[in-house]
Amino acid sequence: MRPQIVLFGDSITEQSFRSGGWGAALADTYSRKADIVLRGYGGYTSRLALFLLQYLFPLGSTKPPVATTVFFGANDAALAGRTSERQHVPVEEYKENLRRIVHHLKECSSTMLVVLVTPPPVDEEGRMQYAKSLYGEKAMELPERTNEMAGVYARQCVELARELGLPSINLWSKMQETEGWQKKFLSDGLHLTAEGNAVVYQEVERVLREAWLPASEMPNDFPHHSLIDWKHPEKTFQQQCI
Amino acid sequence: MRPQIVLFGDSITEQSFRSGGWGAALADTYSRKADIVLRGYGGYTSRLALFLLQYLFPLGSTKPPVATTVFFGANDAALAGRTSERQHVPVEEYKENLRRIVHHLKECSSTMLVVLVTPPPVDEEGRMQYAKSLYGEKAMELPERTNEMAGVYARQCVELARELGLPSINLWSKMQETEGWQKKFLSDGLHLTAEGNAVVYQEVERVLREAWLPASEMPNDFPHHSLIDWKHPEKTFQQQCI
Repeated sequence: MRPQIVLFGDSITEQSFRSGGWGAALADTYSRKADIVLRGYGGYTSRLALFLLQYLFPLGSTKPPVATTVFFGANDAALAGRTSERQHVPVEEYKENLRRIVHHLKECSSTMLVVLVTPPPVDEEGRMQYAKSLYGEKAMELPERTNEMAGVYARQCVELARELGLPSINLWSKMQETEGWQKKFLSDGLHLTAEGNAVVYQEVERVLREAWLPASEMPNDFPHHSLIDWKHPEKTFQQQCI
Repeated sequence: MRPQIVLFGDSITEQSFRSGGWGAALADTYSRKADIVLRGYGGYTSRLALFLLQYLFPLGSTKPPVATTVFFGANDAALAGRTSERQHVPVEEYKENLRRIVHHLKECSSTMLVVLVTPPPVDEEGRMQYAKSLYGEKAMELPERTNEMAGVYARQCVELARELGLPSINLWSKMQETEGWQKKFLSDGLHLTAEGNAVVYQEVERVLREAWLPASEMPNDFPHHSLIDWKHPEKTFQQQCI
């Protein structure tokens, strides 16, 4: 009965139901209004995402999602020639993959609200510290991701949204507006702290609200307890459920 | 593709995706394994729950949930003759309503794991303080719920689970094993703190695990990134998705 809002992305989406996570916060905001469906795949890139589309968003579905966040790029932007090279997707291909994802979603449902989210900024020092905590002296000497490169991918994501007339969230820019963003918003230079999650939540909630999907104005899926005829509850449910 | 685990209950379920909430924690644990579907209705009793069954769990569904937690009673146990009287459901009827809910769920799917959860204990002092913070001097002089009465409902819930051969979680007893449970686990004498949520999470996770639904042994809905052939990803997805 409830409409579905799908969160489609990589580990930053997969981890969004941890304590303080942006997905869980959306599920709480949309409680009784919409189902927040978690489709996050740690380590995945926009290239891998293409293989999932037909399964996650089958064409001809009678009940496609009303909205989907598409949140890839953090892995695509891993540098060629460094330790996470296998995840690297060239930026032109990243943009083209996002375009194919959007086209598939719109073919699935032309009214689906598709929200493109850029990768967050990268704290290179934080990435190095994280690598050293895992691998000690064997850790890479050069970071496998740079903030500059994440910014290149972010710009392509925002540009594509503009081309296609879709809302976008430029996390890369937004987070860097706050002093100390490196440690405030990022736990290991790449993934989000609770405060970083709060930024994503606020941005996604705002975009959904501005795009005519505000939780506050969507109907409850069953009568609010204040509207129930407690002596004759069957009357309440007969009136409101048929 | 993913199996569904439904959380069906009142406000303690509806609020389970707040920060530190037990529903969100389950969604994180079962990420890539199962969808945690939130069906919490603040203020609802087992009597009202009956009106929802045909909509939430339609008979003849081709993909019924694999498991459902049924978590009512906190409102049913509101005392007759006090300020929340309208929610009161006599304990015999509460037990009978739970039985009807279980029968419907089993008719929906005979293999569905149905987990009965008792109401948590009540901190009467906390309830009074909460009422005074809302209504000042006009607040009730007698609590609208008592811990003793919540215990009566909890026992009926556990007894029914035993009769029907279902797993149950006796939150009322479990929480009272910990000294200072009144403020540690309850925020307003009735609803859960983050630590109270953690108790529910641990209990539900344990019951699901013991009933052959452990997240750790369920398959990922798509290949883990460590299993991907990065040079020829199409091979990975051809093998694992068909």
